[in-house]
Amino acid sequence: MVNTDKKQEIKIIPLGGLGEIGKNMYVIEDDKEIVIIDSGIKFPDSELFGIDYIIPNYSYLVENAHKIKGLFITHGHEDHIGGIPFLLKELQIPIYAGKLALGFIRSKLEEHRLLREATLYEITEEDTITFSSMEVSFFRTTHSIPDSFGIVVNTSMGNVVHTGDFKFDFTPIGPAPDLIRMGEIGRNGVLCLLSDSTNSEVPGISLSEKHIGNTIIDVVKKQEGRIIFATFASNVYRLQQVINASVLTNRKVFIAGRSMERAITLGRELGYIDAPDSTFISEFELRSLPSHEVTILCTGSQGEPFAALSRIASGRHRHIHIIPGDTVVFSSSPIPGNGLSVNRVINLLARAGADVIHHKLNDIHTSGHGAQEELKLMITLMKPKFFVPIHGEFRMQKMHRTLAIQCGVPEQNTYIIDNGDVLSITEGNDVAAVTGKVPANPVYIDGHGVGDIGRSVLNERKILAEHGMISVFLLRKDKVAFGKPQIISRGFVYVRQSEQLMDDIQTLVTSLVQAPLGKFELEKKIREALSGFIYEQIKRNPLIITRIIDLK
Amino acid sequence: MVNTDKKQEIKIIPLGGLGEIGKNMYVIEDDKEIVIIDSGIKFPDSELFGIDYIIPNYSYLVENAHKIKGLFITHGHEDHIGGIPFLLKELQIPIYAGKLALGFIRSKLEEHRLLREATLYEITEEDTITFSSMEVSFFRTTHSIPDSFGIVVNTSMGNVVHTGDFKFDFTPIGPAPDLIRMGEIGRNGVLCLLSDSTNSEVPGISLSEKHIGNTIIDVVKKQEGRIIFATFASNVYRLQQVINASVLTNRKVFIAGRSMERAITLGRELGYIDAPDSTFISEFELRSLPSHEVTILCTGSQGEPFAALSRIASGRHRHIHIIPGDTVVFSSSPIPGNGLSVNRVINLLARAGADVIHHKLNDIHTSGHGAQEELKLMITLMKPKFFVPIHGEFRMQKMHRTLAIQCGVPEQNTYIIDNGDVLSITEGNDVAAVTGKVPANPVYIDGHGVGDIGRSVLNERKILAEHGMISVFLLRKDKVAFGKPQIISRGFVYVRQSEQLMDDIQTLVTSLVQAPLGKFELEKKIREALSGFIYEQIKRNPLIITRIIDLK
Repeated sequence: MVNTDKKQEIKIIPLGGLGEIGKNMYVIEDDKEIVIIDSGIKFPDSELFGIDYIIPNYSYLVENAHKIKGLFITHGHEDHIGGIPFLLKELQIPIYAGKLALGFIRSKLEEHRLLREATLYEITEEDTITFSSMEVSFFRTTHSIPDSFGIVVNTSMGNVVHTGDFKFDFTPIGPAPDLIRMGEIGRNGVLCLLSDSTNSEVPGISLSEKHIGNTIIDVVKKQEGRIIFATFASNVYRLQQVINASVLTNRKVFIAGRSMERAITLGRELGYIDAPDSTFISEFELRSLPSHEVTILCTGSQGEPFAALSRIASGRHRHIHIIPGDTVVFSSSPIPGNGLSVNRVINLLARAGADVIHHKLNDIHTSGHGAQEELKLMITLMKPKFFVPIHGEFRMQKMHRTLAIQCGVPEQNTYIIDNGDVLSITEGNDVAAVTGKVPANPVYIDGHGVGDIGRSVLNERKILAEHGMISVFLLRKDKVAFGKPQIISRGFVYVRQSEQLMDDIQTLVTSLVQAPLGKFELEKKIREALSGFIYEQIKRNPLIITRIIDLK
Repeated sequence: MVNTDKKQEIKIIPLGGLGEIGKNMYVIEDDKEIVIIDSGIKFPDSELFGIDYIIPNYSYLVENAHKIKGLFITHGHEDHIGGIPFLLKELQIPIYAGKLALGFIRSKLEEHRLLREATLYEITEEDTITFSSMEVSFFRTTHSIPDSFGIVVNTSMGNVVHTGDFKFDFTPIGPAPDLIRMGEIGRNGVLCLLSDSTNSEVPGISLSEKHIGNTIIDVVKKQEGRIIFATFASNVYRLQQVINASVLTNRKVFIAGRSMERAITLGRELGYIDAPDSTFISEFELRSLPSHEVTILCTGSQGEPFAALSRIASGRHRHIHIIPGDTVVFSSSPIPGNGLSVNRVINLLARAGADVIHHKLNDIHTSGHGAQEELKLMITLMKPKFFVPIHGEFRMQKMHRTLAIQCGVPEQNTYIIDNGDVLSITEGNDVAAVTGKVPANPVYIDGHGVGDIGRSVLNERKILAEHGMISVFLLRKDKVAFGKPQIISRGFVYVRQSEQLMDDIQTLVTSLVQAPLGKFELEKKIREALSGFIYEQIKRNPLIITRIIDLK
């Protein structure tokens, strides 16, 4: 029995960004068309040995390539645009983004030599992009980067609203969040709201960027030496505020770090940063100007080992060395997992003689993500029928759901879903439901390899990392050892300080290889005996590799 | 010209605990005698692959063993007593400690089968231990463990005071800090003060333990389900407060985690924990009692993967599984570096259905270390001539020095020194000075190995962790390859998904081994060519091992 009278249905499928912070990617789909929102990367934690980035699994998109109308970008942060080069290597998709995000995307695609084939469209809050069954429009929000948008996907069943990352900054540096437009969207009816959960556990309301600007001016005014100011390059408003404070106090600005140079150049080109050429100085002027006339604006506020600030702290920077009187300002708070790196850099800077001002000591940073009252404001403006907390770990999703319920969304209309879940909204049904699962496992990128590393390789790396390895290589002829077994270790012990142990291992293996066993049987026997012996001796479990070659 | 009229001199030598948090160990020395204060361990950060603990280098003590009179323990935390078994394996030293610390030390020595040979003395604040040239006495402080002492070493040149870890808790759970005795010590004159810098960057004054007790009662009263309370086992006062809150609300207490069981047993034996037997329940009662009558007290508040709480969160605990209505309380704040692990456990607990209350949300934890006003109070009581900030990273030492200067210690009398520095105070000299350096490198412990791992082994582990390894074995006869080269990789790529790459590597090596070079020359050539090729192909740098065997 075939149901020919098919009901209308739309699907919302997160491919990344749920149960985690990073690699955001959301699919909105109806019978005919697919719209994608964001294409981010995520940075690995310390247990993902050697992994450079993580991206979502794109296979659902590849399979449904014919339905895809476009990729829509909420804003220009890496966890929203960083995956684009990897996606474009698999699929040709037109990309729609605001001016600044588009600037970052262009420079990224250029680096990957993908710019020429890419189809890029600049969008503003005035635009509506119309496809055959869907329509996409935008509303202006505030976040820690200019040109941040929420996205409205108008489907045959109603509006699906994706907030992007947002806060409500009523005294922003750039344009204010467009509350009136948001109210209109709410009045017209929101079928489903997908909203940023990052700071759902933070009570109250976030500090305004302008408040930080005042702190920056206070700090800069007080210093008689150089100011070394570290922050995120993409936070163009913050850069503008540092430049303003410098101009106000007759300081010139030296830019350190490639991504900082790129952001300043792009920000000035596109009109987001307003500063005369004479504000910026070269390394020659840096050397000749008196300290109280110098601001250094640099990357590395998260303690990244190759960023400008780490190199300055450890004396490895070509142009900048700490001198007495330098004050280093961390205008950021450490992302969980970066605490130790930041700490190391702060100690190095202090040892080198700098004063260090960081987040704990001053109102020198504010989050780009709204706290609880801001999240409630968004829910109250949008009055959604269904609510899906996105952008966040489970605990944040859960708290965000609680906020939604407090704002009047019925509990059964809130959905904490996972990457890969297919949330279906079907005509005539009062509730949405998870009706399927698409592949959404993390895909690891190491160097130029995409997806050639998974759990088993990572498990080997973990053992190698913690215990090192020993390899045993043996020649035999007619099952009789030919020469002595070759034993090589790496990452295991100081061989010189452990001569006895290495001798014992050699003796053990030499005795084992007397047994006239088959090749694989003997290899297994050596691995087991060696593993037991080493654990008994020094309580370690190195990776053991054996290879026997039977000469003919 | 020999100076026979030798001036008096004392030396203060930190062997661990400066420029870091952990492995505290301080030497106070005069011509005749040495007194040691504390013998701690430190836990490794994620870059010390496979290392279990770090201890100080004991070689200075071994060389000067004849002068050592005793090891004096300020309190029973691992970073003050954890190194004792390793120290006693090298040296026979009598140990003096307060009752609770001694309890922890005994159980530690028993585990290492060292208890029988050890000489242990229990001390109180009434005692003075007299040697021929030095005298050691104690003053009571407050900290996050009972029986915490400051130590006064009376030398021929004056008193050297070591604060241990301390805060000033005026409403403590146990006895109050002995301010009157501290004032007396100050009045009698302090030559040099060594003081705890851990929280020197924190303004104000720390919360009292009693305040936390009130929060605990509030939290426990509100819950209708089970309470799962995670904290440090050694914080016996906190345990008492949880027990009190449970008794008050008619809950019974189940203890989870071996170190928690040990702490409760020891605490009750020694009279630090006051609770009738009927307070504690077995796993059978745990199953039968209604949820609102159950408190579970467990280890794992730092997200330690093998502690009770992690096992509960991931469903691996034998007796405890999360059920709806459970509330998990983290009564701790994450030590830097543990943030990600704690986060992971919180998300698992939330997914399993528990409500989670943690440090960010409530006054559910307080530090055991004094904040700025408390540090200033100590300096003001002691009025030291010389000041050495101890227990802390450089940034904390630096800030503590600033506080001392604010309290009237002349800047030139403050010394930020490093592990291994010999700070000499000489008769007739107005200032102290660093006059030498003794070995104070970190000693790594991995499994049963002490000191058999150093930089080079760790560097190999780092490469193995991030890129994996490839080994090439080859047989030759008369410089002609005999069979094909054997290539084995681990932690490198999914071999099945990278057949082309592995084939190319095989082809490359096979062509290289045609060259009739000497064994070592060819090994080097293979390593270089392979490393270049792999980097060019996939931008990775695996560890490459080559071994050529020339058959005779």
